[in-house]
Amino acid sequence: MMSNAKSHRASPPKYRLYVETSLVAGAQVELTDDHAHYLGAVMRATSGDRVALFNGRDGEWDAEIIDLGKRRCQVRLETQLRPQAAENQQDLWLAFAPVKKAGTDMIVEKATELGVAVIQPVLTQFTQSQRVNTDRLAANAREAAEQCERLSVPEVREPLTLERLLASWPKGRILFTLDETGGGAAITDVLSCSGSGPSAFLVGPEGGFSKSELDLLRRSPFVTHITLGPRILRAETAAVAGLTCWQALCGDWRARPDFRTPFHAPE
Amino acid sequence: MMSNAKSHRASPPKYRLYVETSLVAGAQVELTDDHAHYLGAVMRATSGDRVALFNGRDGEWDAEIIDLGKRRCQVRLETQLRPQAAENQQDLWLAFAPVKKAGTDMIVEKATELGVAVIQPVLTQFTQSQRVNTDRLAANAREAAEQCERLSVPEVREPLTLERLLASWPKGRILFTLDETGGGAAITDVLSCSGSGPSAFLVGPEGGFSKSELDLLRRSPFVTHITLGPRILRAETAAVAGLTCWQALCGDWRARPDFRTPFHAPE
Repeated sequence: MMSNAKSHRASPPKYRLYVETSLVAGAQVELTDDHAHYLGAVMRATSGDRVALFNGRDGEWDAEIIDLGKRRCQVRLETQLRPQAAENQQDLWLAFAPVKKAGTDMIVEKATELGVAVIQPVLTQFTQSQRVNTDRLAANAREAAEQCERLSVPEVREPLTLERLLASWPKGRILFTLDETGGGAAITDVLSCSGSGPSAFLVGPEGGFSKSELDLLRRSPFVTHITLGPRILRAETAAVAGLTCWQALCGDWRARPDFRTPFHAPE
Repeated sequence: MMSNAKSHRASPPKYRLYVETSLVAGAQVELTDDHAHYLGAVMRATSGDRVALFNGRDGEWDAEIIDLGKRRCQVRLETQLRPQAAENQQDLWLAFAPVKKAGTDMIVEKATELGVAVIQPVLTQFTQSQRVNTDRLAANAREAAEQCERLSVPEVREPLTLERLLASWPKGRILFTLDETGGGAAITDVLSCSGSGPSAFLVGPEGGFSKSELDLLRRSPFVTHITLGPRILRAETAAVAGLTCWQALCGDWRARPDFRTPFHAPE
């Protein structure tokens, strides 16, 4: 594929990066040190190679690398590949109690792939780690967005206690709570008819919610309890399962992908 | 909780292990070295503690540790906690092209949680690792079955090429192929009406299927192509998503858990 570098407009860019800067035709954009290192040292890109850029506001752009050094990279924006409106942003949030590092990383990555708009860490009584590195979570979300071809990156919010979260819950948003005590409704019963109004899923920690937390959840009028079958799912599996069902039944999984690029394809 | 060890019959066993031996009331069972090490050195269990055992045939049993040494552990079976028939084994298979180690481990673990009966590694043209350690996969499946409270462990089969798999495909089993080229049907359209006949999902490698493999799949009358929405899902996310939809729409997710134990609960 690299031998095609000169006739490159026939195939989509090989790399895809999220940037903060505005994207307009003809602009020259200085990438961050990290991106320069990634393109040069990790991916062995060279001047003339193309990279797709998105910033969550201006769609996705085809850019050419015009200068690539050890810790610097400049690209020139050429054509817009997709307008921002090509992404039908789903009004879906995920609130979750952080688990071990690998599990938390997985939850953020998969939630991004599954199209959530907001990722909200929640501290509960049995939450294992009370310290949450939101910078790390945000970096994971950016990377997952780059890989899964989203035009946006989910917003990673600062952790809240469950009490605070429920007390400040926005009007009109359903909170589907994945309840491993088995007392909830089947997910297809709950989701199949509800359309795709503002929604959120709440996934508890490995030890589950405490009795007082369950009482609090049951008293909250915007909470709907869901049970995911007879086996015990790990927190990260429950998160993926809940978001999957929402996208399949209420979300955008009836839409066809409008843009297929071989970022992951063997060359 | 450990202070309750003597009045232990009030709460379910704290540990849960898969064994090969037959399970009958009163039998004394010698656990493997690995299990003895796990209980003694890792979990700091002691004689008198209880452990739940299952073997995929005789249901689940409550056993008491009667002798625990460095590399040996003997337990005595007391009462049956659940008959084997309590598990409604789903006739669901997963065929997948092995990805990197962490991804493959995740696929096996999540497939077990999601109730698959058979895990079939498949070698395709773009499969990254052509060598598959099925012993390792089987160990992962056992561990996941112990954790998620299944009464059975999925069968991990030896790898097959895609051609061999399709050529030997059993009559009457649908093969849902997760097709990232975007040409498939929406998963809810395909699954909502199909009931729960013998089914399988096929997940390709990171690079997708080759053109000739896609042609072969399209010519196979038992294959149904599915598209999972507009974002690019990693192989492990696609596997979890497909199995989730099947369980939610055709499988046992309308059943309530009949047995809840606090294996993961903080003490």
